[in-house]
Amino acid sequence: MAATARQRGLALRPHAKTHKSLEIARRQLANGAAGLTVATVSEAEVFADGGFDDLFIAYPIWPSEERARRLRALADRVRLSVGVDSMESAVALAARVGRLDVLVEVDSGHHRSGVPPKEAELVMAAAERAGHTVRGVFTFPGHAYGPGQRLEAVKDEARALRRAKTAAVRSGGSTPTAAMTEAGDLTEIRPGVYVFGDAQQVELGNCTFDDVALTVAATVVSRRDGHVIVDAGSKVLGADRLPWASGFGRLPDYPQARIVALSEHHATIEMWQEPALGDQLRIAPNHVCATVNLADELIVERAGREIDRWPVDARGANT
Amino acid sequence: MAATARQRGLALRPHAKTHKSLEIARRQLANGAAGLTVATVSEAEVFADGGFDDLFIAYPIWPSEERARRLRALADRVRLSVGVDSMESAVALAARVGRLDVLVEVDSGHHRSGVPPKEAELVMAAAERAGHTVRGVFTFPGHAYGPGQRLEAVKDEARALRRAKTAAVRSGGSTPTAAMTEAGDLTEIRPGVYVFGDAQQVELGNCTFDDVALTVAATVVSRRDGHVIVDAGSKVLGADRLPWASGFGRLPDYPQARIVALSEHHATIEMWQEPALGDQLRIAPNHVCATVNLADELIVERAGREIDRWPVDARGANT
Repeated sequence: MAATARQRGLALRPHAKTHKSLEIARRQLANGAAGLTVATVSEAEVFADGGFDDLFIAYPIWPSEERARRLRALADRVRLSVGVDSMESAVALAARVGRLDVLVEVDSGHHRSGVPPKEAELVMAAAERAGHTVRGVFTFPGHAYGPGQRLEAVKDEARALRRAKTAAVRSGGSTPTAAMTEAGDLTEIRPGVYVFGDAQQVELGNCTFDDVALTVAATVVSRRDGHVIVDAGSKVLGADRLPWASGFGRLPDYPQARIVALSEHHATIEMWQEPALGDQLRIAPNHVCATVNLADELIVERAGREIDRWPVDARGANT
Repeated sequence: MAATARQRGLALRPHAKTHKSLEIARRQLANGAAGLTVATVSEAEVFADGGFDDLFIAYPIWPSEERARRLRALADRVRLSVGVDSMESAVALAARVGRLDVLVEVDSGHHRSGVPPKEAELVMAAAERAGHTVRGVFTFPGHAYGPGQRLEAVKDEARALRRAKTAAVRSGGSTPTAAMTEAGDLTEIRPGVYVFGDAQQVELGNCTFDDVALTVAATVVSRRDGHVIVDAGSKVLGADRLPWASGFGRLPDYPQARIVALSEHHATIEMWQEPALGDQLRIAPNHVCATVNLADELIVERAGREIDRWPVDARGANT
């Protein structure tokens, strides 16, 4: 991803919500990332404590009193940028936190948070008037997370950011769109999932099983006619499932197998190969960001041997 | 639930996976619970450390070397029972852990783990021969978690456990079935979710919003025509959604509102009432067991005022 961004003249600001790991973030910066993206104030605090000094909270934060205090403390010690998607939030941030570096969130078609592209410059001007330093605009083309929707999302993203001509930073997504993104309309990308890959990215065609770096080790605990039950459920894998996903995760070593049911501590796998009770199977989760947030540490292997353990430093830092 | 069980002559062994809290488990025992149910070896360790001395791991555990060692240590210090659902696992447990109190898991129609009811006495005999003390049988009628399926699941459960006539303990589920369960075929129930309630139980008709004791406090961060975005996503609420659920959680104070989309840090709510930016909304999660496992502590309120904080002691203890 670092090479892709460099070749295209795009800054890479990887989203740390995927790994929540200081160790992995250090490697991303060593490979040329310009800074980190985080999702929450508490993630920003963990990475600031870990020595990272350029953090963008890509989220339209509303400053409650308590969050305002924490944002002020962060802005005093690192280069902090935050998202805004309304004049009200720009004004509230100015009143409760003081001057901040802000980026205005634009809705490029995912229809979650963000202002319509044609209102971006209006909100940028309002944020300047409120006293902030407006660094630019950002968007998340989340509608790229659907089969056959990637190209359209890339175009929507470019179109949305292009309208904010005056913005120095024009920051876009995402693992599905990154490979198709050109510099010009965008100056920066913020992919996250690429660092591990997951079953949904494989099913979307954005990577192969060989690119999936994180799997869950699950043990076969029960069997019945063509199905095996393993001891990794939604409290380990996460329950994320987009409507088009073919199951609740995939088995890289058994591409034909499907996880047909998932409960808290059981995954039911349809597979004709029938491994033995006690066998360990590797599962690529559907959405790796959810899986990592459920674990306290990552076991690092090389050639099947454990070589290290890395803590999930920002595990649970979701508010 | 304690009163229901007492009136019917059923032992109550609540499933602690829902709350993972020593404080709440203490109250369950003070109200007459006979012991605790847990899902994993690591949950059993947390509750044993917390002073609970009668624990049933209601799961068909396969004893890897490491788990065998931990099971042995547990069995040495508390009254431990574990689930088995095959002759192979009974033999493996005997060889690697030694004699244990076991209950044979029976599949009453949920078709996850468990042996067919007609094989229960066969596996019980095999477990006795392997050297274990067979305390009885258990089942989880998980197919009760569907609209209009409760009565059928209750009947299936009774029929399945009735076949194991020789078993001293005949242990069944579950929050949806508990109110319809009679003693006789069963001697014990193991409900979990009832301790908090959740949106799925409300939509199933098993409780009302007034019975829901746990909600997530979320702040409105963004708005657009009839939709508000709040700052609680799947990393706080959990992503669980049964096919019939009407959304990704419910708002007890706005019964007509629906959470129409959920991503990691955003919930998109369709509601015509349009609260203001910064307003706090209460969300009842779909599946409260998943939500609790994502939090480090529970904030205890009475009449809207915080009166205590209880740690989620077994948060992450899922293996």
